[in-house]
Amino acid sequence: MLVSVGLAAAFAPSRTASFANGNHMMRSATRMSTVESIDTSAAADDVLEDLLAGCGGPEGSMRRKMAEGLRKKQLAITDLVSAADGEMFQEDAWTRPKGGGGITRVLPGGNVWEKAGVALSVVTGTMPYQTFMTANPAAAKRAAENGLTNSENGEIEYFATGLSCVMHPRNPMAPTMHFNYRYFETDLDGIWWFGGGSDLTPSYLFEEDVQAFHGAYKSVCDKYDPEFYPRFKKWADEYFYIKHRGETRGLGGIFFDDLNDREPDELYNFAMDCLTEIGPAYVPIVVKHKDDEFTTKQKEWQQMRRGRYVEFNLVYDRGTIFGLKAGGRIESILMSLPETARWEYNHKVEEGSAEADILDAFKNPRDWLGVLESA
Amino acid sequence: MLVSVGLAAAFAPSRTASFANGNHMMRSATRMSTVESIDTSAAADDVLEDLLAGCGGPEGSMRRKMAEGLRKKQLAITDLVSAADGEMFQEDAWTRPKGGGGITRVLPGGNVWEKAGVALSVVTGTMPYQTFMTANPAAAKRAAENGLTNSENGEIEYFATGLSCVMHPRNPMAPTMHFNYRYFETDLDGIWWFGGGSDLTPSYLFEEDVQAFHGAYKSVCDKYDPEFYPRFKKWADEYFYIKHRGETRGLGGIFFDDLNDREPDELYNFAMDCLTEIGPAYVPIVVKHKDDEFTTKQKEWQQMRRGRYVEFNLVYDRGTIFGLKAGGRIESILMSLPETARWEYNHKVEEGSAEADILDAFKNPRDWLGVLESA
Repeated sequence: MLVSVGLAAAFAPSRTASFANGNHMMRSATRMSTVESIDTSAAADDVLEDLLAGCGGPEGSMRRKMAEGLRKKQLAITDLVSAADGEMFQEDAWTRPKGGGGITRVLPGGNVWEKAGVALSVVTGTMPYQTFMTANPAAAKRAAENGLTNSENGEIEYFATGLSCVMHPRNPMAPTMHFNYRYFETDLDGIWWFGGGSDLTPSYLFEEDVQAFHGAYKSVCDKYDPEFYPRFKKWADEYFYIKHRGETRGLGGIFFDDLNDREPDELYNFAMDCLTEIGPAYVPIVVKHKDDEFTTKQKEWQQMRRGRYVEFNLVYDRGTIFGLKAGGRIESILMSLPETARWEYNHKVEEGSAEADILDAFKNPRDWLGVLESA
Repeated sequence: MLVSVGLAAAFAPSRTASFANGNHMMRSATRMSTVESIDTSAAADDVLEDLLAGCGGPEGSMRRKMAEGLRKKQLAITDLVSAADGEMFQEDAWTRPKGGGGITRVLPGGNVWEKAGVALSVVTGTMPYQTFMTANPAAAKRAAENGLTNSENGEIEYFATGLSCVMHPRNPMAPTMHFNYRYFETDLDGIWWFGGGSDLTPSYLFEEDVQAFHGAYKSVCDKYDPEFYPRFKKWADEYFYIKHRGETRGLGGIFFDDLNDREPDELYNFAMDCLTEIGPAYVPIVVKHKDDEFTTKQKEWQQMRRGRYVEFNLVYDRGTIFGLKAGGRIESILMSLPETARWEYNHKVEEGSAEADILDAFKNPRDWLGVLESA
């Protein structure tokens, strides 16, 4: 499994990397391997053009095609969310001297969403072979089997582009949503892959919403492979698992990584279709619940679930951890954290309550569509 | 450096450990290596007696002496805080079948403190030699140099007792405080050590408070060794460092680990004196500020600093990470998290503001007492 990009930024070429924008000054790290980043005020589309020229590959290459496709989807989803919220996204574009950068769109303090962010990144660099093996053991194994590397001490050149998103609504009846789609390429012949997923994290369970969300992604999956939905649904349940709590972070969706078992164009189309679906699959659920009545206790439960979100992202999310330790653009990496969160000592849910119901679903992932084989 | 105990619990003998109380039933983990813990309703002092009988060593041993000393200090500090707050601590005692347990005292939702917790743990177990080397490389090196182990694949038997504490006050002008004192012993001859520290995490800087806190600990240190304060002050600044932010968590205090360069009794006395000092050094600062006026913006700044506290504890605190991954009593480990926290995208402090002032001190640790040698 690989980085939840936004974080591709994290694959900085060196531990003392410093970031700068394309046409302003550069500040260096204050101490140790900390990184200070600077946002550019340059127009985002100029930045994207620079990024593509610098590391996007030739016309018609998958590098360029994917980055351009992700940028279009970034605009589409933020337009939809902005229309539903009534507030605009702010946009920060950034580049770094050694290759690549990104465009981050954030809606902080909206009417409907307390925090919504969609981050595009387009990055090139090198990484030690050891890091590659940790990041994607399966791909590293493929490379070794094909005799593509003799030295485990060498450096791998890579290109990564990804679009990652987290949206936290205000109303506790409206779910948080996360997605992430990415394309990764190395300089080893044939060693490339797609990864991604979309998942839903409600604080209260409205079964019809969860079924609709899963149903929408099953339809997208089925267009490509009837095995995709069952496989990727289970993968999401396994990946978004908070081990120390014995709970999943939310109610899942789909998650996949290291996908390269068919033509790149087909996988590109699959990723694009998944991204097209996120608007219709998610926004109506939030619109439906944005004005639901709720109590202080229900708000507190949402805040505690936000606390779990923080725990997952800081303790388990590979991309976040790698990004934080290796030095990426912190504000783009931690954009995923909620505006507010809560921890109560030894909190117990009341038996038979709505909180107990959804907690059971976090502890025992359900087959929302009744289509998985029983074990 | 070693575990911030409470977490000694985390040194569970196996990854599928399950916890139980002394005289009730045991529930096993739901799946993977998750642990469900059960609090006992048994009287805490009975539990302590059981713990000491089970793993505390004979009368007069340092194991027993330290555990008993820490328990007395737990009662003393919680009494003091309770008197200042007006609310009582609740107490949970727990044991685990394979040896050890603890007594956790928490004041959730007090008048002055939003969350205050003091956790005692007394644990025995075995750990792989590799874990020992990671936990305390210096001690592992000492052991190897003394020919105490020939096999790097063997298991080390250990005993650990510690008292850890975090207190988060409501008023943003009143500082958070953390301390942790612990004693660790292995079955390798002469391989034991003391560790600990007390540190202050304010959201707003009142220089006289910080000087008083550091001054109190300098006095305790000076009783034992004039080198202690300069050395342990710097160690705290290095340890409580949030690398990805380029900031310390708070304004420090003292921190030390792997201390075994003098008689155990002297180090025990030092730890006890540090614990005696925490009441007079901390509680008056909170009492002084508990009714200070503050604005919504100031409360939000406090909440953002709480967010940094969460980041440190979940990303860097070795004890927390080890505890979460290995499976300890989650509620005792995460007792350290604040009740509420906040993350704002790309937040910037205003130049010349009080927030900018303390942020500067987080980025460039200061010599509060003017006693450190300049580099």
